[in-house]
Amino acid sequence: MPDYDYDLFVIGGGSGGVRAARVAASLGKRVGIAEEYRYGGTCVIRGCVPKKLFVYASQFPEQFEDARGYGWTVPEASFDWPTLLAAKDKEIARLEGIYRAGVDKAGGDTFACRANLLDAHTIRLEGENRTVTAETILVATGGRPNRHESLPGHEHCILSDQAFVLPELPKSIVIAGGGYIAVEFANIFHGLGVDTTLIYRGVEILQHFDMDVRTELHKAMEAKGIKIHCKTVFDRIAKEPDGRLRAHLSDGAVLEVDQAMLALGRIPNTNGMGLEEAGVELGKAGEIVVDDYSRTNVPNIYAVGDVTNRVQLTPVAIHEAMCFIETVFKNNPTVPDHDCVATAVFSQPELGTVGLTEEEAAKQYDELEVYRAHFRPLRHTISGRDEKVLLKLVVDAASRRVVGAHMLGPDAGEIAQLIGVSVKAKLTKDDFDRTMAVHPTAAEELVTMYQPSYRVRNGEKVAA
Amino acid sequence: MPDYDYDLFVIGGGSGGVRAARVAASLGKRVGIAEEYRYGGTCVIRGCVPKKLFVYASQFPEQFEDARGYGWTVPEASFDWPTLLAAKDKEIARLEGIYRAGVDKAGGDTFACRANLLDAHTIRLEGENRTVTAETILVATGGRPNRHESLPGHEHCILSDQAFVLPELPKSIVIAGGGYIAVEFANIFHGLGVDTTLIYRGVEILQHFDMDVRTELHKAMEAKGIKIHCKTVFDRIAKEPDGRLRAHLSDGAVLEVDQAMLALGRIPNTNGMGLEEAGVELGKAGEIVVDDYSRTNVPNIYAVGDVTNRVQLTPVAIHEAMCFIETVFKNNPTVPDHDCVATAVFSQPELGTVGLTEEEAAKQYDELEVYRAHFRPLRHTISGRDEKVLLKLVVDAASRRVVGAHMLGPDAGEIAQLIGVSVKAKLTKDDFDRTMAVHPTAAEELVTMYQPSYRVRNGEKVAA
Repeated sequence: MPDYDYDLFVIGGGSGGVRAARVAASLGKRVGIAEEYRYGGTCVIRGCVPKKLFVYASQFPEQFEDARGYGWTVPEASFDWPTLLAAKDKEIARLEGIYRAGVDKAGGDTFACRANLLDAHTIRLEGENRTVTAETILVATGGRPNRHESLPGHEHCILSDQAFVLPELPKSIVIAGGGYIAVEFANIFHGLGVDTTLIYRGVEILQHFDMDVRTELHKAMEAKGIKIHCKTVFDRIAKEPDGRLRAHLSDGAVLEVDQAMLALGRIPNTNGMGLEEAGVELGKAGEIVVDDYSRTNVPNIYAVGDVTNRVQLTPVAIHEAMCFIETVFKNNPTVPDHDCVATAVFSQPELGTVGLTEEEAAKQYDELEVYRAHFRPLRHTISGRDEKVLLKLVVDAASRRVVGAHMLGPDAGEIAQLIGVSVKAKLTKDDFDRTMAVHPTAAEELVTMYQPSYRVRNGEKVAA
Repeated sequence: MPDYDYDLFVIGGGSGGVRAARVAASLGKRVGIAEEYRYGGTCVIRGCVPKKLFVYASQFPEQFEDARGYGWTVPEASFDWPTLLAAKDKEIARLEGIYRAGVDKAGGDTFACRANLLDAHTIRLEGENRTVTAETILVATGGRPNRHESLPGHEHCILSDQAFVLPELPKSIVIAGGGYIAVEFANIFHGLGVDTTLIYRGVEILQHFDMDVRTELHKAMEAKGIKIHCKTVFDRIAKEPDGRLRAHLSDGAVLEVDQAMLALGRIPNTNGMGLEEAGVELGKAGEIVVDDYSRTNVPNIYAVGDVTNRVQLTPVAIHEAMCFIETVFKNNPTVPDHDCVATAVFSQPELGTVGLTEEEAAKQYDELEVYRAHFRPLRHTISGRDEKVLLKLVVDAASRRVVGAHMLGPDAGEIAQLIGVSVKAKLTKDDFDRTMAVHPTAAEELVTMYQPSYRVRNGEKVAA
């Protein structure tokens, strides 16, 4: 066996890469990891974490409004965007430090530079102007927002990366996209007082989620004042002499705005890093092709996380990293489990979901029972806010198994996490029914829906 | 068979009574129900519902404070107690109408008067000055706060009933009691700006809950500014000429306050309603003694809810009512299931719990694995609030079953509802581990605690 510098070298210091590096180092392996931008990756630096902090910031105006019904007189509040940015940056820097220190403390070598492959075992550390060798290489370089370079004027648009560091808050913005990033940012900007328009190519926002929840969220966002135009795209973006933008839409409309944002999906980071030189196979979207064990076609090179374009979620990347460790360093080949992943969209109201949508379930099962509760939460009886909670359980009538659960409303993400345990464990509607309600909560409706709202038989909705 | 006026007569229009009356009537039974105060009972009129509305009202000041870290400048807000009372009363009146109308619409007769038993089949409707007869009688008269009449000066104290209708908000209050009502009101009054002291006879607030959670909540409440004195009781309460109260405590301290509140448990409502005349057996606490099917010693008289002093919770009363219907009117004898009841305390922070406390589990199982996460929630990294989340899973090491789950933090009630499904279904820690995290949430910690924090072996805490 050749004498490599490292047992494992990880390229990319995001959630998946750092987890693999830290755990491998703690097992006594000689580990190196390189990150060219900032440790923490998308999730920590310009994804989940700062996004949720922005969500919190953007929710306060509704709190101020809701307080009035409860007897509070709240004078008009004002918002300072640079204060939020600075607070967010401070927290992000703290987390970045924790991520890097975690590897250091476990005994790994952390590098702050780009790392490119020269061959299947050799890595060039660009910043350090030297090469290192490793027995096993893990690529965890994540992804980046799609710049949509074929769009005339795309260079005038921001991406989510820039949305986290805008020098000033625009007065108006148009966001293109219908995925969770577009939807979350539309709610964030609107909540912070920005005149916000969302445009999306498809028929309804949040493709792949349950249609019921999609249309309810669409309505709720419009009720707040967010303008949503489906079935339209940007034709071109023009910059006016005064710096404002004109967004020309495919439906003929022209929007004049301060900012235009593209949230049109994300692209795996595989360019120019020597993957071809090392012989690693890439897929059509530029993703690294891996087998069930996250192994590429080159036997000593593995990949986890967004760069593999499987399920682009932080916990999935971490899970894949943990499975990689089991497989490679613990002699326990472990296939990542991508089935039944609970997830949340931090829209306002929040969306939580796990398992099959009603539409998917209708294709897989002969008969479904759908239990649906749609109600004004207790809090809003007095706040006066006209926003409802939607809860929905999709049940296979034959087995009684809850095959999907979907929720729109406060705390939907927290609740979905625990519904996730139940759905993953294949619990039945009877298991839900046997559970005593916790009163007064919204979630209690999930255990007190005695009769189906309707059934779906051979794909057709019928009365219960 | 004698010809009775009603198949079922229900005494008491709270959650249990109304549910039984409505469902029996919808089955075509001839049903009457009498309520002497207001339909909806404790839960709707002076319990769960108005309590939670008060909790919402009392949480806004922390929202205003938290907003600052996020870049909001919020001028000082002011609070008007009568506005809250009026809003609450309006919502309560709406719910009261819904409760009564539900029975009416199902074809039952609703009476707004006291009903007393003359014998096992005869009810005197006091307001209507007449009697009616019924084949089956259900007593669902609930409970009332303990007035503690042996306390000198108890007449100067308010009970929770009065706390819901105080003409003005006091500047200071002392609350006696360590149960959830005392704790919830201490947080409500404090949140609304009242100088609040809680005194409790026992060693720690919230007896019967997990000790870890009890001490954490105690600390969190003190950190907010609530004064808590355990191991002390009122010796006497004296009223000063200026209307203020002097509370003399058993530890020698004297508190001068605007209001004193007693939250010392609740007493079943069984006085003077003819239960003795009908031959119904009462227990030591004045409760109606029932068998597994909620049947009293008089074969045609049943009782459900707080009057039976089993588990004093709204969903339990409703569940008992539904089991009563199955047993008596659907020829399907059904025993209410009081095992593994998830519940919440709407303290601040909120508490959610299901299954065994660590202390109880340590007695029942040879070895426990305790998984404990104690962390600052993401929201408070920027708000600066020094309040942590506590999550705890108590696992039987032999079977891997999660036998108890305890949480302190935002949304604990909502989360506990769903943990309740998992614990009731006897899921294992492995079922939790198999579930993908929803990021970033607090609940994700429940599925990412890979190693026990410690073990409890033969009742002794040992390292993991």
